[in-house]
Amino acid sequence: MSERSYAILGTGALGGFYGAKLQKAGLDVHFLLKSDYEYVRDSGLVVESVDGDFTLPQVNAYNDVAKMPQCDVVVVALKTTQNHLLPQILPPVVKAGGVVLILQNGLAVEEEVAAIVSNVTIIGGLCFLCSNKVGAGHIRHLDYGQITLGEYASGYQACGVTEKMQQVADDFIHGGISIELTADLLLGRWKKLVWNIPYNGLSVILNARTDELMAYEHTRKLAEQLMYEVAAGAKSCDRIIPDSFIQLMLDYTVKMKPYRTSMKIDADEGRPLEVEAIFGTPLRKAQAAGVYLPQINCLYQQLKFLDGRLTVDG
Amino acid sequence: MSERSYAILGTGALGGFYGAKLQKAGLDVHFLLKSDYEYVRDSGLVVESVDGDFTLPQVNAYNDVAKMPQCDVVVVALKTTQNHLLPQILPPVVKAGGVVLILQNGLAVEEEVAAIVSNVTIIGGLCFLCSNKVGAGHIRHLDYGQITLGEYASGYQACGVTEKMQQVADDFIHGGISIELTADLLLGRWKKLVWNIPYNGLSVILNARTDELMAYEHTRKLAEQLMYEVAAGAKSCDRIIPDSFIQLMLDYTVKMKPYRTSMKIDADEGRPLEVEAIFGTPLRKAQAAGVYLPQINCLYQQLKFLDGRLTVDG
Repeated sequence: MSERSYAILGTGALGGFYGAKLQKAGLDVHFLLKSDYEYVRDSGLVVESVDGDFTLPQVNAYNDVAKMPQCDVVVVALKTTQNHLLPQILPPVVKAGGVVLILQNGLAVEEEVAAIVSNVTIIGGLCFLCSNKVGAGHIRHLDYGQITLGEYASGYQACGVTEKMQQVADDFIHGGISIELTADLLLGRWKKLVWNIPYNGLSVILNARTDELMAYEHTRKLAEQLMYEVAAGAKSCDRIIPDSFIQLMLDYTVKMKPYRTSMKIDADEGRPLEVEAIFGTPLRKAQAAGVYLPQINCLYQQLKFLDGRLTVDG
Repeated sequence: MSERSYAILGTGALGGFYGAKLQKAGLDVHFLLKSDYEYVRDSGLVVESVDGDFTLPQVNAYNDVAKMPQCDVVVVALKTTQNHLLPQILPPVVKAGGVVLILQNGLAVEEEVAAIVSNVTIIGGLCFLCSNKVGAGHIRHLDYGQITLGEYASGYQACGVTEKMQQVADDFIHGGISIELTADLLLGRWKKLVWNIPYNGLSVILNARTDELMAYEHTRKLAEQLMYEVAAGAKSCDRIIPDSFIQLMLDYTVKMKPYRTSMKIDADEGRPLEVEAIFGTPLRKAQAAGVYLPQINCLYQQLKFLDGRLTVDG
């Protein structure tokens, strides 16, 4: 049994799910909550899952990082739209020499975190999870769950599979989560964008599920063109995404169950959209290398409009 | 008084408005109708207009081109989505040596018509009109109304201001319509697309009025980028649209009253969208000259998806 303690910053559909799985496996887990704090403190967490339902009647719940113990691994499970909170909430909970595990979409979040905390190992985790929060302390896990882990080093230089990565992987595997390890986090993040950029973007803009987008010739083609632009963005960062990977993602999406993307769920729920992490930062990274991605830019500007209107109306 | 007779093919918001204005000015006008035929035959047309309301209790109404007289000027006022009907309905109504006046959006409609009828003069008209059909034979003219006329010659070579153009212009001016004459129809059509591509496209995709699109920095910027792509498309056809024209269109749109574009009205009414005329044909014209317009292509594919879903649902 691992003696590593875990802090979960953001106990929603994603953080709540993984945190509950770790606690169920016997780990010492501490959950930061906001709106659900009192409910979860008193009643714990309920996870309905395709892998088997379970409840945790008692969890370590907090509404203030100042009250949390310093943990060996701090899991950042907020939406990136909340990352302006990290300078306040991250430093108090992470042990010197500990790990910050960033389970977020997009690009370059590790750079932000590296600017906030030092003397820690930063690991990025790319989650492929279909999970919703359906009520206070109540998570519904619909499908998937695997995480790809990669360690961050300055400038996103590839740093292989490290001992820290292996330790975190062991804990999650112990909790019943599939883990892949990548030697090159930045490549992993760009590869995730190959899927996230077309489907998150188009699902919100066109109010569509993945199966609808793939059923029409023109959106299937547009998704493919967007994927090639993501590959061009990756190339601007010296990362090569082969054409075969793009074809794999297209085939894979055709075969998937109809899927409502995370950004579509955010839009439907009236929450801010992760436009900057998923679209803005990749565009700026590529642009800094002199590469312009016009169709991704088109989606970015459309989403900024929709996000702005959502926020104003909300 | 002109002795020219006019046939109006498509008595909707646009054809009904201009045809009524011509008849009110004393011209001999013949209206082709579909769903409103019986009503208009019995009750005529009502035009509510910012320039003054009027009614025409008796009009020459037809539901079959075979019953119409051959006319000196045949006005094509159908939506381009109905242009598959032209080979049947156009030849019977146009006099030898007569004029076909195409009051439609988009590009290259004149080429289609030239393939259908010969021994006629083809004139393209670019309408700037805000008008709705609010009931059977009932048109509400909200704003604007001017038309830019240009004569078509094979390959869209510029052919100056011709006598036929001047005659048609005189009739419309007599009917109280502002007319501009252009020596270069293709340039006129591309210039119209500078406005139509961004605002028709984005208004449907983002469910927005022009004022909303211009109120947000990102859509304002996207509209501008799309306009520059239209200018690149025009350049691929050897037509130069100066940057100052783009700035004029942007300034002009900022100052316009909130406007629901024609494509947005079509989408709201569940009618097919003019995607091919406004987006598909310009893209193909540019592509034939080796010029790729990625952001217009992005809008095109999004609109094809929305149009396809609209049609399937409808």
